[in-house]
Order: sequence, then structure tokens, then C-alpha cells
Amino acid sequence: METVQLSLSKGFAVITPRCLYRNDFSEFREQLEALPHKLCAFGAGETLWMPGEYIERVYYIERGIIKTALHDEDGTKKTIYFHGPNSVFPGCHQSQFTIELSLVTTAVTPVTALEFNIEQMQRLLQRSPDFSQAMLESYARYINLLIFESAHQSHHRALVKLCNLLYLLARDAAPDKSGLQRIAFSQEELAEILLLNRVSVARLLAQLREEGAIDTRRGAITIIDEDRLLSHCSLEVR
Amino acid sequence: METVQLSLSKGFAVITPRCLYRNDFSEFREQLEALPHKLCAFGAGETLWMPGEYIERVYYIERGIIKTALHDEDGTKKTIYFHGPNSVFPGCHQSQFTIELSLVTTAVTPVTALEFNIEQMQRLLQRSPDFSQAMLESYARYINLLIFESAHQSHHRALVKLCNLLYLLARDAAPDKSGLQRIAFSQEELAEILLLNRVSVARLLAQLREEGAIDTRRGAITIIDEDRLLSHCSLEVR
Repeated sequence: METVQLSLSKGFAVITPRCLYRNDFSEFREQLEALPHKLCAFGAGETLWMPGEYIERVYYIERGIIKTALHDEDGTKKTIYFHGPNSVFPGCHQSQFTIELSLVTTAVTPVTALEFNIEQMQRLLQRSPDFSQAMLESYARYINLLIFESAHQSHHRALVKLCNLLYLLARDAAPDKSGLQRIAFSQEELAEILLLNRVSVARLLAQLREEGAIDTRRGAITIIDEDRLLSHCSLEVR
Repeated sequence: METVQLSLSKGFAVITPRCLYRNDFSEFREQLEALPHKLCAFGAGETLWMPGEYIERVYYIERGIIKTALHDEDGTKKTIYFHGPNSVFPGCHQSQFTIELSLVTTAVTPVTALEFNIEQMQRLLQRSPDFSQAMLESYARYINLLIFESAHQSHHRALVKLCNLLYLLARDAAPDKSGLQRIAFSQEELAEILLLNRVSVARLLAQLREEGAIDTRRGAITIIDEDRLLSHCSLEVR
């Protein structure tokens, strides 16, 4: 797991917000495979969660990345989070919320997944306290990310928001051969996470490139100088 | 419970976002009372969760209202949610998040509560699938509220945001003797939920009063004409 963990004197491992969820359910893979399920494959751009759907199917992502966005009545799309390998999406609870009608989940890359129905997942939650605990922890992570988004990101300047996001994504990214952290998200995807327009994102990325904080060649953003990037971030992510 | 539930043809009860959590744990009151605990009382304005604290104590609120706000490094306070009678605050999970260092919870009214340590709560989660399920549902509600906040509220105009909030708070409020829904939050409290300044909130409330949507006498906001209020709301709360 690439989670950022800061060890505190109190002995806690403290976790910064994550936009990309993965490996949180690795240890339950065998238990899940033993449940009745369907193997699924989705091409990039295909929809896993359709607009207007309630939670009826739950996925264990084996390979690939999916993204979940909220589509507003005015046409705005706001990406909320990404799920990668060994994550369970969207989770498993009984209440159905109106907001779920506006959520759309699509494959960013080709995806393979195990598909379960929610009743089977709920039975597993009932009989496995450890699985139940893992689900609660993953919900706590969503809450952590969303509180960060809602309270901090909303009133920061665009540059601070973008630098916060790049820093979080870089910490979630596996380093490439040269040890650099590559962020494989497009400018459009970054814009949809931050509710900025693409022109603003391109302008801010150009500024960061000129400062020597990042490189933007070969279809990915690479962090060149983490300290310089961090100097623009808000305190809560450092 | 005053939760708004819309029955759909599919048989689901669909829940709109709530800012005020209460009665979600009423059925566990006896089980919780049987655990070792401490009785606590807090005066209005007193702090239940101090800045810089991690989750070590969990409360079952018996009476009163508490509010949780995120205090940003730049001095901004953003109220996230309120907890009332028969709710469990802040919840119970194992991960500790950096964001928790910026959260501050204070009593809005005089509060009485049962205080538990987190280890005892975690043992109850392990042995009671129903309690665990209720905790998961309450986390799902937080996520629901926060997705609503993060994605919808962030780009709405101030009037839409305020009307959305008044509508949600009114649905959570018990009607008064004349059957009207009274919202007992101050203009300052509303401003801190919406990250608006007080002058803007006062101006928007004056507009709604002139339109006949609300009344603002006797230290509370009363919804007079719900349809008129709703006409300003965004679709996802209607």
C-alpha cells in the first residue's frame, strides 16, 4: 500500500487524504472469491455505475482504475474518487440516498472485476467482524477525503487546490524506473476533480513546470521537486 | 426520526442529506449503558473534541446538540454537521487521519452524554453485527452529506446553498405548536456551515422574508412557504 503514514509519538499511524483507493481489501480476496460472483471486464470509458442506479451490485476490482463523478443537473461533472486494484466499490450499506442517483462510475483504464450482489455482501458483513471493520475503515477514508474536500479545498485558491491534489496523487502513485512519481491523469481529469476549467489547469501546470516543480512530458505529470510543490500546498496535506 | 424518506416504486426508502444526526442509535441505548462509561455534562460553548485530538473517546448524546467544525490554518471555520439526542459521536474506526487534528466539536446547547473509550466501542463492534451495521449506516450518511456538500454546494450560488440548507434543516426540525418548522440556528451558525459571511446570510434571509418564504422573528427561522423556498433549491434536495 502506498498510503502516506506519518508515525506520531503517540504510536498512531496517521493517514492523509487519498483520492485513489486500492489494496484496502486485499486480505479478503479469497473470502470474496468463495462467494457467488460474476467475472466482469470493462473497457476504458465504459460505465460501472449508471446514472439513476441505487447500490445493488458491488465490485472487487482486480485490475484497472475506475472513477466516480457526480453529475449535476447543470451539466457540471465533479470527480470524487478513484478505485484501483483490490478495492471494493462502492461499498455496502442498506440506506439508499438520493445523491446516489447522480453518481456515475466509469472505467478510466481497462478493468477486470468480480461482481457481487449486495445481499451476499451484507451476509458477509454480518458474519465477518473483520470484513465489517475493513468496510468501516474504508468509509472512514471516504469521510476523511470528503471533509478535506468540502472544508479545505472549497475556499483555497486554484493553485493551492491543484498542488494539494498533485501531492496526494503522487503519494498514491508507484514511482517509475527512475524513482520519480508519475501522475497518469489527464488535465481534463484534474479539472473535473477540482471543478476548474481545463484552461486554468493548463495555465497552473505551466506555472509549476516553469518553477521546476513538475514535468509534463509524455502524457503524464512527474513531480521533479516535491519541496517546491509542497511550498504551495495547504498545511493539512504536508 | 424526522428523516425525509421518499418511497420509490422499487421499495427503497431514499434519504436526503442530513446535517443533524439524531436517533440513529436509539435501539442500542441499553447495550451501550451496559458498557463501562462515564456520565458527562457540557455547557453551551464547551468543547467535546479539542483541536489536535485523535479519536479516543466516543459519546452517546442523551440530550442537547453539538456541532463539529473544521478550523483551517487561515482562521476559517466550516461547520460540517450537528449531532443530537441518541446519536453516537464521532463514530468508531481504527485509522487516524490528519484531518481529525483540525476538527473541533462544541456544545451548541447544554448537553448530557455517556462517554466511552474507543477500545470498548470496538469490542462492541466486533461482537454485535447489528451495532456494526448501524455504525456503517451512520458513516454512509456522513458520506452522503459530504458528497452533497463537496460536489453540489461548492458551485451553487449563495442563495441556492442557503435555501438547500434551510430546507434540510427544516426537515430535521420538529414542527412547533402551530405546525411550522422552526430552525433554531443563528445567522452566524448558518454562515459557518456555508462558508459565507454573516452579512451575505442576513441579506439573503431578508430576500427570502420579503418573498414570504420564511419568517425570522423570535430568534429562529420559520418556513412559511415551503414551495417558494424549494423553488430556489437545487434539484437534488427536492
